[in-house]
Amino acid sequence: MNAVRVYDIITKTRDGLGLSREEIRFLIDGYTEGRIPDYQMAAWCMAVYFKGLSAEATAELTMAMVDSGELLTWPEFGDELVDKHSTGGVGDKTTLVLLPWVAAAGVKIAKMSGRGLGHTGGTLDKLSSIPGFRFDLTRTEFIRAVEEAGLAVVGQTGNLVPADKKLYALRDVTATVDSIPLIASSIMSKKIAAGASRIVLDVKAGSGAFMEELSRAKLLAETMVDIGAKTGRRTTALVTNMDQPLGYAVGNALEVREAIATLQGAGPEDLTELCLALGAEMLVQAEKANTPEEGRHLLVEVMEKGLPIEKFRAMIAAQGGDPTIIEEPGLLPQAPVCSDAVAPKSGYVTRIHTKKIGLIAMELGAGRQRIEDDIHLSAGLEIMVKVGDKIEAGQVIAKVYGPTPEVVETAVGKVEASIEIGDLPTKPLSLILARVSR
Amino acid sequence: MNAVRVYDIITKTRDGLGLSREEIRFLIDGYTEGRIPDYQMAAWCMAVYFKGLSAEATAELTMAMVDSGELLTWPEFGDELVDKHSTGGVGDKTTLVLLPWVAAAGVKIAKMSGRGLGHTGGTLDKLSSIPGFRFDLTRTEFIRAVEEAGLAVVGQTGNLVPADKKLYALRDVTATVDSIPLIASSIMSKKIAAGASRIVLDVKAGSGAFMEELSRAKLLAETMVDIGAKTGRRTTALVTNMDQPLGYAVGNALEVREAIATLQGAGPEDLTELCLALGAEMLVQAEKANTPEEGRHLLVEVMEKGLPIEKFRAMIAAQGGDPTIIEEPGLLPQAPVCSDAVAPKSGYVTRIHTKKIGLIAMELGAGRQRIEDDIHLSAGLEIMVKVGDKIEAGQVIAKVYGPTPEVVETAVGKVEASIEIGDLPTKPLSLILARVSR
Repeated sequence: MNAVRVYDIITKTRDGLGLSREEIRFLIDGYTEGRIPDYQMAAWCMAVYFKGLSAEATAELTMAMVDSGELLTWPEFGDELVDKHSTGGVGDKTTLVLLPWVAAAGVKIAKMSGRGLGHTGGTLDKLSSIPGFRFDLTRTEFIRAVEEAGLAVVGQTGNLVPADKKLYALRDVTATVDSIPLIASSIMSKKIAAGASRIVLDVKAGSGAFMEELSRAKLLAETMVDIGAKTGRRTTALVTNMDQPLGYAVGNALEVREAIATLQGAGPEDLTELCLALGAEMLVQAEKANTPEEGRHLLVEVMEKGLPIEKFRAMIAAQGGDPTIIEEPGLLPQAPVCSDAVAPKSGYVTRIHTKKIGLIAMELGAGRQRIEDDIHLSAGLEIMVKVGDKIEAGQVIAKVYGPTPEVVETAVGKVEASIEIGDLPTKPLSLILARVSR
Repeated sequence: MNAVRVYDIITKTRDGLGLSREEIRFLIDGYTEGRIPDYQMAAWCMAVYFKGLSAEATAELTMAMVDSGELLTWPEFGDELVDKHSTGGVGDKTTLVLLPWVAAAGVKIAKMSGRGLGHTGGTLDKLSSIPGFRFDLTRTEFIRAVEEAGLAVVGQTGNLVPADKKLYALRDVTATVDSIPLIASSIMSKKIAAGASRIVLDVKAGSGAFMEELSRAKLLAETMVDIGAKTGRRTTALVTNMDQPLGYAVGNALEVREAIATLQGAGPEDLTELCLALGAEMLVQAEKANTPEEGRHLLVEVMEKGLPIEKFRAMIAAQGGDPTIIEEPGLLPQAPVCSDAVAPKSGYVTRIHTKKIGLIAMELGAGRQRIEDDIHLSAGLEIMVKVGDKIEAGQVIAKVYGPTPEVVETAVGKVEASIEIGDLPTKPLSLILARVSR
């Protein structure tokens, strides 16, 4: 009976026919509980890779995964929690800036974050560079921190979405990761299980993103917004450019430093702009603004009052960290060695191989190849140029920070090879590529 | 290292890129020996289902499967063994007629056959209706039987193609059976491992075949002929009609009776014609004839001399069976109950739902749903009409043989519903639909 039904579910998926709510539940429950073997699930995932899933089935898959574990609720915050998720990029310190900024505008933020892997960083790693900062708060501590500081960031706790953990591990070894409905349901199930009822998504597109093609990034954004609509979680997505690092800094302590500058109104233009765009959406979701434009004005206002950096300070203090890093960034971890990468010729920056930049940062020690690897919090890069910049031969185009001269010199060569310089003027890149909402 | 390579093989297959000889060997050896888990193999099979395999990779897969077990050789027969394989159909007793007939023309036949499953029968089941007939010959007995009688048929022995057994079991539960390169390599690996160096294939197309569509049956035939060419096994395929049962009888003892009549030159026209066509190809492969036409004449000649039925008699005797069934077919198992199905109206037979006929025979006890089921050797059907026949209301269109009146009556109703009668004249079906050789 069991075998027959799973077989039929695989066949229907393979043939592009619809799956019922009951079939999706049967599949996910059976897999989570070990009744359905990995080999049938692997065949199903490959069938989904080729034939996709309907919007209904994708939403049902998401909720079936949510229901495989705990579903957190936050009655302490009126049960309406606004969350933000990025699909991951290089130099993406948005969360560090965005959350205090939005909290400064009066939205309570209770955020769960993760570690980085491969060429992309993670918010927890970045915050780890702040001496004393703790993520392992109990629920009571977490809620108190949110009440006191207006925001808190912790690591993932509890048994959230075990189906996704098991399914992701299987997809990872069967070449079935790169499937839009599977990616979308994985991301959304984790947000929903963590208790988010209103969600703003930053879907990255470009050479430093998991989705290199804009069309696929848009499709992912649409699929997630659809899941939100069908599961009663108001969701908006921006598709944003990851064809160059966001801001200048790539690497944990370096990014915290840049986040502090941005929270003081003196950050890189692209990072500031992205935080304004995403923050405006969050304010609309939180019903603090009627339109993104209104939200934007509110954010500009609180920045003029100097409130965002004070929220950041309050968060650090509430979570056991040392807020004096704001005035004395020298207290953040410092790399033993720093060296400059220079432009080999004059011209215009035509292209930045962003994934390569992310991998160079990882090799310097800023990131990890495997989840169990140690990292150097001080290591990383500052990419001083953007696509379209006019530069002179010999000009410093990047600063490289690492543990030893050998490691740094190797990285300098690789960075120089990752930034293409051409003779003809090149247009700067657009930052916000699309907005998706229902 | 292992995981990485398998992952790359799945990815390449998924993306329609070629696999090297080394990659195919790595995959099949690793899977057979248990180093590669079922879930990765299942994902690979589904990727093959969608993207296929190149002709080179399909041939390499075939030989990798052959090499997973024993490769039988037959120096006793000069190492050139002609074999015939049918992809399976309803009423397909070709082997029973063809092999003695070809043996009568001077070709030594050492054949391994199998049991039936689902709506199709198997040669071993049919021969089991002959009292005393033994398939479990030792190699020495088998060779002696071939030397004495000119032909022998046994069950599969030895550890032939363990990779195929393991892979087929996996495909069976992951909805990946229906893939041309996987079907072709499975069939050809078994023929090659059994020692066949010259192969004639009967690829069935139509409502009673595994390949219902002619275009897919042709593709399967071409794929197998290609494998033969690339592995040095001369292979010819005929694509033949399975849109109606072959001959009239469907069911083991009933088919033996029809085979005897055909070996005496008094069989159904389609069965006789198919045996002539396949036999002519076998004579060419065995270098007893230069062209199929020459082979055909030789077959007609030996039939006129009454030799085929004598070869059948010799085979039965050499394998411990009672050859008096030839003169007294009443010694074959007899069904307790027989009833007629009649035409509900006058007209022309426009269509016979052949798979349904096969399933009705199975339900009567002639076949098995699971490999461990028992069967009734006497049960089955005689379908008295062919597509295109003009019939009168009330005319007997089929005879139904079974163990009890209830079972038979149910079957009678189903048979009547499986034969469509229309008002307009309908053309008889062509038997040989295509010939494929290199």
